[in-house]
Amino acid sequence: MKFCSECGGSIELRIPKGDDRDRYICDDCDHIHYINPRVIVGCLPVYEDKVLLCKRAIEPRYGFWTLPAGFMENGETTEEGAARETWEEARARVSNMHLYRVFDVPYISQVYMFYRCALDEGLFGVGPESLETALYTEQDVPWEEIAFPVVRETLKAYFDDRRRDNYPVVVDAIRYRKPPQKN
Amino acid sequence: MKFCSECGGSIELRIPKGDDRDRYICDDCDHIHYINPRVIVGCLPVYEDKVLLCKRAIEPRYGFWTLPAGFMENGETTEEGAARETWEEARARVSNMHLYRVFDVPYISQVYMFYRCALDEGLFGVGPESLETALYTEQDVPWEEIAFPVVRETLKAYFDDRRRDNYPVVVDAIRYRKPPQKN
Repeated sequence: MKFCSECGGSIELRIPKGDDRDRYICDDCDHIHYINPRVIVGCLPVYEDKVLLCKRAIEPRYGFWTLPAGFMENGETTEEGAARETWEEARARVSNMHLYRVFDVPYISQVYMFYRCALDEGLFGVGPESLETALYTEQDVPWEEIAFPVVRETLKAYFDDRRRDNYPVVVDAIRYRKPPQKN
Repeated sequence: MKFCSECGGSIELRIPKGDDRDRYICDDCDHIHYINPRVIVGCLPVYEDKVLLCKRAIEPRYGFWTLPAGFMENGETTEEGAARETWEEARARVSNMHLYRVFDVPYISQVYMFYRCALDEGLFGVGPESLETALYTEQDVPWEEIAFPVVRETLKAYFDDRRRDNYPVVVDAIRYRKPPQKN
């Protein structure tokens, strides 16, 4: 942030009175610009013994597999956002949604929220942000080509929990680790 | 948003290519400014048969009672944020934190996340954003003077769940309703 989005004035990074951390503050109109973490909402769509994955057609992690997910938008609920992303990326409708995994990723100021849900009628397609989409059984998941740690952990937890037929909601934090490189 | 925070240029509200909703876009540098929901993190601190509430010293809802909660900050986890807010508002340390209630409030683009937790040693004080703080049993909670619907619902759920000794994680949405006026 270099300019005030309210008045166009110049911005200074300093601690406002009564606060305890640096904020972007306008030199002209004194507006304080707060920057907060963003929420990524996604689905774990299940059909029979398979889960729906999307091969990314966009960076980051082009060509790697992921669960349908994306930035939550203003004016929607987390559940609505997760369903919207699933339609956008995999042309799939979902139902019976249950919050399943929350991941804090503080080093990039993101919170991921994944909903476990049913893939309606087992139908899906390919949205513009995906190269392809597919249903995978546990042994067929391309484990070495999963795009993000939060997706790998959600998938592993799901297959474990399914063996126990018990799906507790778990909050976890992802601390920094270097992503694997694709060969 | 009236000016580009990157270059100071003028801002137009329009749908970017490949998108499906209005965004703030700079006429000069073409930067797209996304605005996303914010996360409010809070605690339900429990000591013996009582919960810790704070009487608000700030607007909105000055003088009403609330659970310690506030905007999640960059670089922290939801749990860290909830504990930080509890320290800031009630000078209380908490432990044994469990995600308990998630509330989507789409009409103001907010997501609330409350952690059920133990109030360490039953100790607390009064932070600068509180007029007073107190431990309340179920029958003593000032139910008519609770600041926000999300707080009232979290408290009611907690006392109900405690009778069953079962605390499921529940996601709910708060749709618009006019707040009660204080007499």
